[in-house]
Amino acid sequence: MTKASLIFQPYGKKLDVTIGETIFEAAKEMGIRLESFCGGHGTCGKCRVIIRRGKESLSSLSGAEEFFLSKDELDDGFRLACQAAINKRGIIIVEIPYWSQLDQQRLLLEGLERLVKLKPSVKNFIVHLREPSLLDVRSDIDRLLDAVKNQIRLRPRIDYECLKKIPLVLREGHWTVTATLWMNSEIISVKPESPRGGVYGVAVDIGTTKLALYLVNLETSETLMSTSMVNPQISYGEDVISRISYIMADDENLERLHRVIIEGINRLIDESCVKIGITAEEIYDMTVVGNTAMHHIFLNIYPKYVALNPYPAALQSSINIKARELGITANRGAYVYMLPTVAGFVGGDAIGDIIATEIYKSDKLMMVIDIGTNTEIILGNRNRLIACSCASGPVFEGAHITYGMRAATGAIERIWIDPKTLEVRYQTIDNAKPRGLCGSAEVDILAEMIKAKIITSNGRFNPKLETERLRKNRDPIEFVIVRKDETAINNDIVVTQKDIREVQLAKAAIYTGTSILMRQMNITPTEIQKIMIAGAFGNYIDPLNARTIGMYPDVPLRRVGLVGNTAGSGARMALLSTKVRRLAEKVAREVQYIELGADPMFQEEFLKATYLPHKEIERFPSIMQLMKNN
Amino acid sequence: MTKASLIFQPYGKKLDVTIGETIFEAAKEMGIRLESFCGGHGTCGKCRVIIRRGKESLSSLSGAEEFFLSKDELDDGFRLACQAAINKRGIIIVEIPYWSQLDQQRLLLEGLERLVKLKPSVKNFIVHLREPSLLDVRSDIDRLLDAVKNQIRLRPRIDYECLKKIPLVLREGHWTVTATLWMNSEIISVKPESPRGGVYGVAVDIGTTKLALYLVNLETSETLMSTSMVNPQISYGEDVISRISYIMADDENLERLHRVIIEGINRLIDESCVKIGITAEEIYDMTVVGNTAMHHIFLNIYPKYVALNPYPAALQSSINIKARELGITANRGAYVYMLPTVAGFVGGDAIGDIIATEIYKSDKLMMVIDIGTNTEIILGNRNRLIACSCASGPVFEGAHITYGMRAATGAIERIWIDPKTLEVRYQTIDNAKPRGLCGSAEVDILAEMIKAKIITSNGRFNPKLETERLRKNRDPIEFVIVRKDETAINNDIVVTQKDIREVQLAKAAIYTGTSILMRQMNITPTEIQKIMIAGAFGNYIDPLNARTIGMYPDVPLRRVGLVGNTAGSGARMALLSTKVRRLAEKVAREVQYIELGADPMFQEEFLKATYLPHKEIERFPSIMQLMKNN
Repeated sequence: MTKASLIFQPYGKKLDVTIGETIFEAAKEMGIRLESFCGGHGTCGKCRVIIRRGKESLSSLSGAEEFFLSKDELDDGFRLACQAAINKRGIIIVEIPYWSQLDQQRLLLEGLERLVKLKPSVKNFIVHLREPSLLDVRSDIDRLLDAVKNQIRLRPRIDYECLKKIPLVLREGHWTVTATLWMNSEIISVKPESPRGGVYGVAVDIGTTKLALYLVNLETSETLMSTSMVNPQISYGEDVISRISYIMADDENLERLHRVIIEGINRLIDESCVKIGITAEEIYDMTVVGNTAMHHIFLNIYPKYVALNPYPAALQSSINIKARELGITANRGAYVYMLPTVAGFVGGDAIGDIIATEIYKSDKLMMVIDIGTNTEIILGNRNRLIACSCASGPVFEGAHITYGMRAATGAIERIWIDPKTLEVRYQTIDNAKPRGLCGSAEVDILAEMIKAKIITSNGRFNPKLETERLRKNRDPIEFVIVRKDETAINNDIVVTQKDIREVQLAKAAIYTGTSILMRQMNITPTEIQKIMIAGAFGNYIDPLNARTIGMYPDVPLRRVGLVGNTAGSGARMALLSTKVRRLAEKVAREVQYIELGADPMFQEEFLKATYLPHKEIERFPSIMQLMKNN
Repeated sequence: MTKASLIFQPYGKKLDVTIGETIFEAAKEMGIRLESFCGGHGTCGKCRVIIRRGKESLSSLSGAEEFFLSKDELDDGFRLACQAAINKRGIIIVEIPYWSQLDQQRLLLEGLERLVKLKPSVKNFIVHLREPSLLDVRSDIDRLLDAVKNQIRLRPRIDYECLKKIPLVLREGHWTVTATLWMNSEIISVKPESPRGGVYGVAVDIGTTKLALYLVNLETSETLMSTSMVNPQISYGEDVISRISYIMADDENLERLHRVIIEGINRLIDESCVKIGITAEEIYDMTVVGNTAMHHIFLNIYPKYVALNPYPAALQSSINIKARELGITANRGAYVYMLPTVAGFVGGDAIGDIIATEIYKSDKLMMVIDIGTNTEIILGNRNRLIACSCASGPVFEGAHITYGMRAATGAIERIWIDPKTLEVRYQTIDNAKPRGLCGSAEVDILAEMIKAKIITSNGRFNPKLETERLRKNRDPIEFVIVRKDETAINNDIVVTQKDIREVQLAKAAIYTGTSILMRQMNITPTEIQKIMIAGAFGNYIDPLNARTIGMYPDVPLRRVGLVGNTAGSGARMALLSTKVRRLAEKVAREVQYIELGADPMFQEEFLKATYLPHKEIERFPSIMQLMKNN
């Protein structure tokens, strides 16, 4: 087979590639992860690379490249990695600019969390055994189980992988050993008495876009490490529906997505262990939350039917599965506890939200909105809980937006527009030179534009407005946020009519969810005592601006709280206490799933919600007031 | 690396071998199994092959070859495969004579078996489910478990491997499926209603030398297939002690022996499935018996301490382990039930003997002798059971005997010697031309020789005897059983002084076991109401001749019964009924292990028992009478 040589800068990695492969595929082979929302289909324009040498060995420009790349960029040698295929022998040098490198994004990992009394599923204890003699030839394992029975009053079973090593371990420990007992019913590990090691657990929150992991000391309750990465499944589809479509396309794809999430989790476990200075052997327990699709793929269960009327999950009950059966790096005897799911895409993440916010025991009516690529909304109180899930999409993660990016260094996170001069002020993450817009800025832009009358309530640019920032001759029309010379990307950072449309659709999806839940409960916004906005993105938005664009019902701001990653908090609480698990199971049985798509008003509600803040402006009296004062 | 070409006849297989390899190793690589007791160490002389071409490419004759091969054989081009190493390039043609091919031996697989009321651990039943609707969005798995609960009154757990496939299976079966329930507590398999398949189970008896497997229909109790092979571990040591030594020699050897026995079992399963026309998917259960060493190695447990004072097993209790964790070919959800063990080498095979012979509920005092490479002896009745294990060795399997062989075609299985003419009559398996002596013939030879006064009670050839059959000038002295021209091996089949010594040692080991057990019970042979001789070999011996040489206590022959492979019967009974399993567990707790080596009289008892029938001839009044009449 003919090959070309490909060198990646700044990595200095060299690869012999087969003719026909794209740069995107080659980078993947090398373990270099490129920004991409579409997974290499030429529809997001994110995987921009610069060809430093050998452009003659590449395929000619595609339509997608002509669409996404500016003339300046084309002149500078930019290509989309997923479009540029190697079609001739030769040496090709490809520079991956730092904004195309998929590095760890800034993610909120912490969330509102309740104090949980430590009652983990695993505990270590020391067992002293009598040495065998001709008068007592009980087997090694019976001897151990009898001794454990003396301590805990019941005879546990023993894990096979642990059992195999017993004869050696008992003798190495000179008949005194440390046994690890799971749920008071199974010995999952036995070690010679000294050294003893710790008892650690891992809580995992599998988001559609992000994966968060917490390493917890199960003897002290302390969270030793919070870490995260982009969900590596993102290369196969940016939202749950596109991943399910991918799975349905080929029999091996479920296994593939399952494997990449397991590998991602293992990577975070390995890194955390190294940083904390423990071994994975000392991890004896794990809890996992995620929406139903993430839950199913993690378990290697076909998730198709979750997406089809009447949207049943494959598995709602909580379940314990041996970590080794899933290929998770942990003690060989460790279990993984999966929090229960509900139905549709309302999964263990929503159960985590419910537990961490304590909405399930509130006297007052509350609403939790966990904003993500998939947004879960829970409404109710101790008497009744209903929940739904909205396909809000990855817009707030930076996808589908011309200059959208994840919340990483150089992302504009705050924007203010002077209604008189239309001058724009902004703030970036790490105060770096701006290179794009993250989710919170998108919300700000729409809110500020509506207040400054740059756009009208239907989201269109005001045709009467005259400012050089508004370039009406472009298609789509665009508004300049930051001028080229101030940016790190040598390009004007603009927001286009299309971008505004994308944000409108996302916020409409969320609002429609809240509105249908309210109607199910037969309540008005004034009856809601508290709205808790959860999720990594949710914690960075300006609640006032979010209300101004109509993302959630019009309630006084004092009733709105940002609660952070409560799904992850729920996973951690369940890791710390088996009582929390029983609670999660109870909650999951009681919460009622509302399928938005099945509501006859859904379509109409959604279209009205695309207006800013809403077609029925009387639903947002505070905004009516604001606009009047303007 | 320099290579030579090796062609095996009659297989026609060709292999490029590295210089330095032996023919034995090369044959192994090719999957050709050669007769061998010593595993290729030049100490058994069984792996005889004929070099048809290229002898100049082989190493020169070793001391072992000069010892084991006759001058005629050497002239005919015979070599020992384990001694002849390839030391030069060239083409070498090796013929493997059929008596060196390790083919399936004739084994008694059936044994005394009690009628067991069918109560298997697994059962299939049909479950009808309601299709999900928006009014009933229970998850697929909860839906299934709820429906099962309606039928069996309790909610089972579900195997992870089974769980993964539920969404597809429920829909493929149009919401009617066949579920397989294990122990009324776990769903291990779910299939679309049609086709349904059967419910089969496998019982396995892992002997030191032989591996027996029974395929059973768990809906009808019928044994559809009994099959066996030589325990493939035999290449690594002929008895339990040599295998344990092998394991202790290298950290990877336990895993190796574990793997070969699993592979052996899988081969028998595959063959049985093909012959019966079922798939391994339809095998939902398995029971296993074996002595403690076989039990431990099967489970990949270090067996060293079983062989060391005070001889504790690593595991006595019965245990259920997922077949897939052991690598056994069966339904993915199937369990393997290991019958309990006792201590020392008294394992699940002895428990099988106890169950199948019903000694545990006998009013009368009984003795079970399960003869094998490791011989288990059980003595007692419903009030008390004691058991021991004797290292009788593989002599009765044909090892250590000059012309010994396994009970296969051409083996002499019966011998009569005319006390006057000293002429020898014999009978071979399949009436083929004789090629060696199997275990039952060895017993006959000693008994007939003692009666014909060819040997004296200490096992020595009678020096006064004059017959051309007795070749006093050989070392060791030998007695011709069959002359060269009558045999299939072009060699006189003889029995040597050393061979007689080997049989003496083996029978002494067994008798010593019976004698020490009797002393422990404080009884005399006249009090034993029944002696049951079990084991594949045991079923072919002449009980009179065995008693004549003093293999078991002198009781009237009417009290002696040959009961066949009762260990395998016990495994099958446990497969058919979980009640039998509970019984096995009770018996295992109650039977008392007697360690022969710990008895102060052991050495003396053993030496006296090497006499034919015994140094204290008064212990064998019936033989005293016989000899007097002679």
